[in-house]
Amino acid sequence: MEGRYMRHSQPGPVDTTSSPRAALKTLPFTDVSLLGGFWANRQKVNRDSSLKHGYEMLKEVGTHQNFLLAAGKKSGTWSGHRSRDSDLYKWLEAVAYELATRPDGELQEMADEAIELIVSTQAEDGYINTYYQHLAPDKRWSDIEFGHELYMAGHLIQAAIAHRRATGKDDLLQVARRFADYIGSVFGPDKHKVVPGHPEIEMALIELSRETNDECYLDLAEFFIDQRGYNTLGNRFYGSWYYPDHVPVREASKIEGHAVRALYLVAGVTDAYMETGEESLLHALETQWSDMTRRKMYITGGVGSRHHGESFGDEYELPNDRSYCETCAAIASIMWNWRMLLVTGEGCYADIIERTLYNGFLSGVSIDGKKFFYLNPLLSSGDFERSKWFGCACCPPNVMRLMSSMQHYIATGDENGMQLHQYIPSRIESIRDHKHIALSVDTNYPWEGLVRITIEDSHGGPWSLSTRIPEWCDKPSLRVNGKTKEPGTTKGYAVVNRKWAKGDTLEVEMPMEPRFTVSHPKVYANRGNVAIERGPLVYCLEQADHDASVNILDVEIDTSASLETEWHDDILGGVMVIKARGDSVDYGPWEDEIYRTLANGQSKRRPIHLTAVPFHAWANRGKGVMRVWISGAEIP
Amino acid sequence: MEGRYMRHSQPGPVDTTSSPRAALKTLPFTDVSLLGGFWANRQKVNRDSSLKHGYEMLKEVGTHQNFLLAAGKKSGTWSGHRSRDSDLYKWLEAVAYELATRPDGELQEMADEAIELIVSTQAEDGYINTYYQHLAPDKRWSDIEFGHELYMAGHLIQAAIAHRRATGKDDLLQVARRFADYIGSVFGPDKHKVVPGHPEIEMALIELSRETNDECYLDLAEFFIDQRGYNTLGNRFYGSWYYPDHVPVREASKIEGHAVRALYLVAGVTDAYMETGEESLLHALETQWSDMTRRKMYITGGVGSRHHGESFGDEYELPNDRSYCETCAAIASIMWNWRMLLVTGEGCYADIIERTLYNGFLSGVSIDGKKFFYLNPLLSSGDFERSKWFGCACCPPNVMRLMSSMQHYIATGDENGMQLHQYIPSRIESIRDHKHIALSVDTNYPWEGLVRITIEDSHGGPWSLSTRIPEWCDKPSLRVNGKTKEPGTTKGYAVVNRKWAKGDTLEVEMPMEPRFTVSHPKVYANRGNVAIERGPLVYCLEQADHDASVNILDVEIDTSASLETEWHDDILGGVMVIKARGDSVDYGPWEDEIYRTLANGQSKRRPIHLTAVPFHAWANRGKGVMRVWISGAEIP
Repeated sequence: MEGRYMRHSQPGPVDTTSSPRAALKTLPFTDVSLLGGFWANRQKVNRDSSLKHGYEMLKEVGTHQNFLLAAGKKSGTWSGHRSRDSDLYKWLEAVAYELATRPDGELQEMADEAIELIVSTQAEDGYINTYYQHLAPDKRWSDIEFGHELYMAGHLIQAAIAHRRATGKDDLLQVARRFADYIGSVFGPDKHKVVPGHPEIEMALIELSRETNDECYLDLAEFFIDQRGYNTLGNRFYGSWYYPDHVPVREASKIEGHAVRALYLVAGVTDAYMETGEESLLHALETQWSDMTRRKMYITGGVGSRHHGESFGDEYELPNDRSYCETCAAIASIMWNWRMLLVTGEGCYADIIERTLYNGFLSGVSIDGKKFFYLNPLLSSGDFERSKWFGCACCPPNVMRLMSSMQHYIATGDENGMQLHQYIPSRIESIRDHKHIALSVDTNYPWEGLVRITIEDSHGGPWSLSTRIPEWCDKPSLRVNGKTKEPGTTKGYAVVNRKWAKGDTLEVEMPMEPRFTVSHPKVYANRGNVAIERGPLVYCLEQADHDASVNILDVEIDTSASLETEWHDDILGGVMVIKARGDSVDYGPWEDEIYRTLANGQSKRRPIHLTAVPFHAWANRGKGVMRVWISGAEIP
Repeated sequence: MEGRYMRHSQPGPVDTTSSPRAALKTLPFTDVSLLGGFWANRQKVNRDSSLKHGYEMLKEVGTHQNFLLAAGKKSGTWSGHRSRDSDLYKWLEAVAYELATRPDGELQEMADEAIELIVSTQAEDGYINTYYQHLAPDKRWSDIEFGHELYMAGHLIQAAIAHRRATGKDDLLQVARRFADYIGSVFGPDKHKVVPGHPEIEMALIELSRETNDECYLDLAEFFIDQRGYNTLGNRFYGSWYYPDHVPVREASKIEGHAVRALYLVAGVTDAYMETGEESLLHALETQWSDMTRRKMYITGGVGSRHHGESFGDEYELPNDRSYCETCAAIASIMWNWRMLLVTGEGCYADIIERTLYNGFLSGVSIDGKKFFYLNPLLSSGDFERSKWFGCACCPPNVMRLMSSMQHYIATGDENGMQLHQYIPSRIESIRDHKHIALSVDTNYPWEGLVRITIEDSHGGPWSLSTRIPEWCDKPSLRVNGKTKEPGTTKGYAVVNRKWAKGDTLEVEMPMEPRFTVSHPKVYANRGNVAIERGPLVYCLEQADHDASVNILDVEIDTSASLETEWHDDILGGVMVIKARGDSVDYGPWEDEIYRTLANGQSKRRPIHLTAVPFHAWANRGKGVMRVWISGAEIP
């Protein structure tokens, strides 16, 4: 069905324009342009440094070589984790988004080389996996739990879709489709039945269905989803909870297991709901979302409390020193929340995206774009720092693909108009039913809370401009063409419906007073502690801002003193710093004991000034002690 | 060398009478008799209930059946964990100690049946392991990491030594020795080289060497010890740190890895030192001991902070809700500290034994002796309780063998006299160099701090009576025949050297004021928290002692108010209860959020009385909320 396959496709990771149960419709990625500011700077670093660094690393550690080996173009030793092929796929997806935005000869050449490598590696029957092709050609699908074959197929498919949407070229998509068709010939209701050991292919197949308009891929994704939850995985290492495979998808009420697996799965299930509208899926998704965001999410948006199995913990189990918070899990949470937002139009999902983007995700990459965190703890005793790459390097290229597709997450359209989810300086266009809308967003967010939206084109009829009022903002104000308007919110959005005309403005003002935050009393790790937040940013104390006479792990903050802000152009690429007051506490010598009878006079206190910086920027001045939660007071 | 083999042996788990580097010499187990009181009651429950319950459980879950299968006396399915044989061995060791103390027809019959089972299972060449014998006869030693063959050999040897020392019978010891000889024919410097996946056989072989006076067993133990630390284990599941096999034994400075493995290992290494006197071993042991007791030990004496790998955590990583604290690890710590005490004569080791016995070990068994904890967390949200047995049932019979050998840990002798390590009502005799000493200890310890020691027999010459002054006691007083004496301490002991005569008394008075305890400021889990202790006992708050209007997780204790003690005959078999004052805090509704901006008036406080009970007794009134560390104040 070449005709259906060649339909108009929309650049970007997700295209919900034809999804029956998507309340919000994604906009063409290329119709959103970043116009400087916080994220444009980060995206530039990603393009100029991270992507090129990434390609070098892929070559250096042997990811390329694995493809050359599998393609029979070289002899040597296959190396790495069995998921390694996917590092190249995610990197390629990121490059595709960049190429959709602007030409870049160097990136284009790298991408062409990578695609050529992939094309030449694919087996006759469509299969690609350098490990099995090179080392164990007769063992395909023999290790569904840890072989990562279906997981990597998913990443190949996503990269191929991104590349086709970006360039219009079909070469990589044909490779991906041949692999998907081959997978469909092996697995299915009347064929081999398995549960993918690492979810990912579900999202990818459904997007492939959207891209090709071929429902067979949706059917295959649904088959994999329906198989899950009957304890067929988990007999070797962890239990079935890890995959997760212990509860059928429709009955799941808790978010459990390996965080990235669990979140890629629910993201795929959300995609399935958008296509099928099966209410039991949505109900299970909403219940799991509540479990995650109300009981298992760090203040940074980071998720996955346990090193053991890189997994979610129990309710309120959120240790700070041992928080795992894999960067990929933050990205997976953003992917899931984005899909939930598209389904429901509820601002609470965009709130979680914002919290995660500015904190638990962004901490994953250094300011220079060349070093990465795999884990993102909320407390460091000083021996933790970013690495330029990893043996299992899932996180760095995952950061790259999200960074290079930032445009995708800013706004959506629907029958009634346009919704602005993230405040990022940009120009946004939309054509729906031949009606043209264009607007520009001007703001110094996240450093300042004023957002000015100017209508640049409008089709003349009335339409609604919806702007999210973040959950952290309790006193927003709204001005339409300079005149104050009551900002009543619907689903977390201030909605202004009028006949918008070119030159009209909507201003949203969100006061950004720094604030102390406390956590649920059952989060034992945070008892008697407060965090500092300002706007969407979580702050931390970093040793680098304090002199050697102060150990920031031994300070108490004075929550009755006010917090002051100061712009510092000279550190961390320019940040708003928050000044606080507190005590430095000297607990005396403790080398020889761990427990001691309580007595007065064991500690000495002296008043000091404390300096807090955005959590996402920590560890950019060497490794050093850091804490988000600061001893202060019990909830008053 | 039958003659040497048949030398006089001393009942009890460890016999250091001939060990060149043991500063203290163990006493014959049977020369120490418990005379009522705290531990005698527990030992009676162990004998009358636990041991019989244990034998029933061994039959019920299939441990017996596995032996019958391996012996070819029955057909059926082998079941359980591959370490299951050792449950029977540890149970048998416990029974042997009881039979050494007093005849018991029923236990005797059970023991005879068990021994008959073991004898008939042993292969021609000496090998015993029901799993491999029944299921995989050609796979012996193929899985050194998790096969547990050498580990179980160790437990068989310990049980056999205990049985011979208790009864004088050789049947089980011959079985064990044949197995040990077979192991020696397989492994060794010029033979197969392996590192046992779970240490245990090292201790056992050295004790076998002491029992038989045959150095080949010591040599074999040393061979296993010397092999360790070169990363030969750990390629499949965990890393080599787990076993531990990442640092050579003489270079180890940190206590790391799976807690029981790490501690059985150092216990075995301590035995090796006692025989060889190699100083590099002792240095490594002392360094690891400091690391454990100053940085990685819970206030209960429990060790092993992590669920992941049942392992030690980082320095000061001591979470309360997720504390692992396996009962076996507490027992292993006691075994190691006992050996360190024998080597050095330093009271600090007996202090750790005391702390662990009364708290982290004793919590492992219910008051009725029929339910057991595998984990011993310091905080429970209410869904944790003891079980009658486990799939991997290492802990229950380990509790039984320690409980039934309690006499062993009370006192020792040396050239100069007798050392009293644990205050337990008892009669203790010692004959060294044909010089007879006998004394009785009368005390209501741990409820009261007065200990009265009466000399019942003395050889006439001067000798030293050394009594430990516990680390928790800072104001001890001493009276010799009623006259106060300055209690200067040597190595943690008050030493009184005189010509003791029959009827002489030494009274030690250790004031038992309840006290608040704080922990090292780097233990983040305990910041702003205090614990309550009295004498050797750690206390906890248990929901059962508070009415429903108080949630003990939401209370703050007033550390400026005094703590009051009250004897309660009617609960928990009779305990000293501690009353405190504090506030019950109502944090209001939090269902829908996990983070909230700090504001005054979010909580309501009302003064209440708090009741603390000994930690070891918790969860004997149904499961319920419990906490050891109580929100109170930062270190003042």
